[in-house]
Amino acid sequence: MSATDPQRITLIGLGTIGMSMAALHLSRENVTVDVFDTRPDFDQFLLKTLPNFLDQGPSANSKSQPSTSAVASLVASGRLHIHTSLETACASATIVQEQGPENLEFKQTLWAQVESFAPPSAHLWTSTSGIAASAQQQKMDDKTRLLVVHPFNPPHIMPLLEIVPSPDTSPERIEFAREYFSGPGSKHRPVVLQKEIPGFVGNRLAFALLREACYLVQEDVVSAKDLDTIMMASLGPRWAGNGVFESYQQGGGEGGIQAFLDKLGGTMQVVWDNLGKVNVLDEKTSWKEKVVTQANEAYGTLTPGQVREKEERLKDFVAIQTKKYGYDVPEA
Amino acid sequence: MSATDPQRITLIGLGTIGMSMAALHLSRENVTVDVFDTRPDFDQFLLKTLPNFLDQGPSANSKSQPSTSAVASLVASGRLHIHTSLETACASATIVQEQGPENLEFKQTLWAQVESFAPPSAHLWTSTSGIAASAQQQKMDDKTRLLVVHPFNPPHIMPLLEIVPSPDTSPERIEFAREYFSGPGSKHRPVVLQKEIPGFVGNRLAFALLREACYLVQEDVVSAKDLDTIMMASLGPRWAGNGVFESYQQGGGEGGIQAFLDKLGGTMQVVWDNLGKVNVLDEKTSWKEKVVTQANEAYGTLTPGQVREKEERLKDFVAIQTKKYGYDVPEA
Repeated sequence: MSATDPQRITLIGLGTIGMSMAALHLSRENVTVDVFDTRPDFDQFLLKTLPNFLDQGPSANSKSQPSTSAVASLVASGRLHIHTSLETACASATIVQEQGPENLEFKQTLWAQVESFAPPSAHLWTSTSGIAASAQQQKMDDKTRLLVVHPFNPPHIMPLLEIVPSPDTSPERIEFAREYFSGPGSKHRPVVLQKEIPGFVGNRLAFALLREACYLVQEDVVSAKDLDTIMMASLGPRWAGNGVFESYQQGGGEGGIQAFLDKLGGTMQVVWDNLGKVNVLDEKTSWKEKVVTQANEAYGTLTPGQVREKEERLKDFVAIQTKKYGYDVPEA
Repeated sequence: MSATDPQRITLIGLGTIGMSMAALHLSRENVTVDVFDTRPDFDQFLLKTLPNFLDQGPSANSKSQPSTSAVASLVASGRLHIHTSLETACASATIVQEQGPENLEFKQTLWAQVESFAPPSAHLWTSTSGIAASAQQQKMDDKTRLLVVHPFNPPHIMPLLEIVPSPDTSPERIEFAREYFSGPGSKHRPVVLQKEIPGFVGNRLAFALLREACYLVQEDVVSAKDLDTIMMASLGPRWAGNGVFESYQQGGGEGGIQAFLDKLGGTMQVVWDNLGKVNVLDEKTSWKEKVVTQANEAYGTLTPGQVREKEERLKDFVAIQTKKYGYDVPEA
């Protein structure tokens, strides 16, 4: 079966990421979605929450308020099925994707159950941000089926999916996932990692930068808010338009990144030797209090309206990339 | 004198950054620019090169080809003066800004000369990316006048200026520079750092991330090109729309960044302990060859047309920020 054929996707765990993921899958006309979550008021929660994600896909531009009737009509048309048991949720799946708690034992147990309930051909995806497929698959009979599909929040807008197979995942399963997210009509950009590594790639890059950001606030070089201004006024737009290496390739002129490293290597090594080494688990550090206090003062708690406004802006950035980089493929 | 009053700015060193900086200043109607560079064919070079920058300011949308006559008419109208000696270039300055070689001895000597040629009231700015004002000022009589104004390439489009005073810089000089770049009509966003630190803030954050990026390529976790795709499809647009701390404040939901650190702290510390420690000055490392080879294969040397296309996209990103964040102040 090709990834562009009609699919029936079971989503397990419908928190914020799960809801956004449901919206992503439902934006494809040939996909049917089965949802299962253990919260007692799940159907009411879904009815209320899912509409916030449904009209916000990368291709949608409507700013009208979402309607709860959207879920009812998806159910009535047979595109969305709400389940009260894992067994029925998995019974007809071609893909099972979990967004459950980030707990190794939970995931190991879940996959053993899913293996017994879902068709043997079904592809098994975990949206984990931190627990490798090779750890999650320990209680499974067939370890070739599972892989990580790590989204960035919110998945229905953010183009990236990090696909991280375990050493046991079959090449066909990897290619199927890549094809699914890069097929006709997809605004997403899957990247397959060659090896499992803690934090995968996106969060490793983010956390490396965050560590230094926390250090600079701790040292009173800059406030949290001013550091954010620096990011938005320089590196953010640069990296939205160019990758990291592409930026330095350009920065080096005709000599490319080699010339850049030759010219700036001295300064770079001074900075690398001088980078902060704050730790997050140590209770005695002062940086956490400083960072939390400054972030609360600068931003408080975002209102739903502010979150929506930020998502609209994110869609605008992605639309520029889509237009200029030719990611815009015709709708299927 | 207020920073919004008419200014006469002497630019020393008109390489790529200097040309872009000249375009930035010339975009203000009440600023006169004096330029000096030691290259023998300087006036011809200026005539040919400056027009590439002149119609590309953040507020310009024209895609027409630049014309060499633009420089001639700036000269004819008295808004641009081309000098063959440092002395005449500095004689009437209210601001002297240098973009010369990144060499401590050069800069120390230059500032002693400028001090003898320029009016005592003139503000002295260095566009250095790596040499602190406190080191550059050593041969000056009045150490209160000099500060770093570190732009990001290209300065006429990129909104950030990092203003980094030395401990001797007077508060009035700092405030003047901040006001100049944030005044009416400016699309720029100056940030004053509280302390001198190697690499300032923007490049420290960039280099912290770059070190991990190089490590991940060295370890064959991901190719240079795929890492760039990851950056553009996730962190780039996120950080273009939100700062680092603002992103995690939002990521933590109602509990803000504190909740984020509580929830993700374990994973974050594992990643921090596991970050790569590649070095750039060590000749025996294999990562440099891998990074350079992959970047050359992926991108080659950018044509002028490609550079211009990237700058147009950068302007689009900045325009979204300007519109949505209310940076858009009326033209003076």
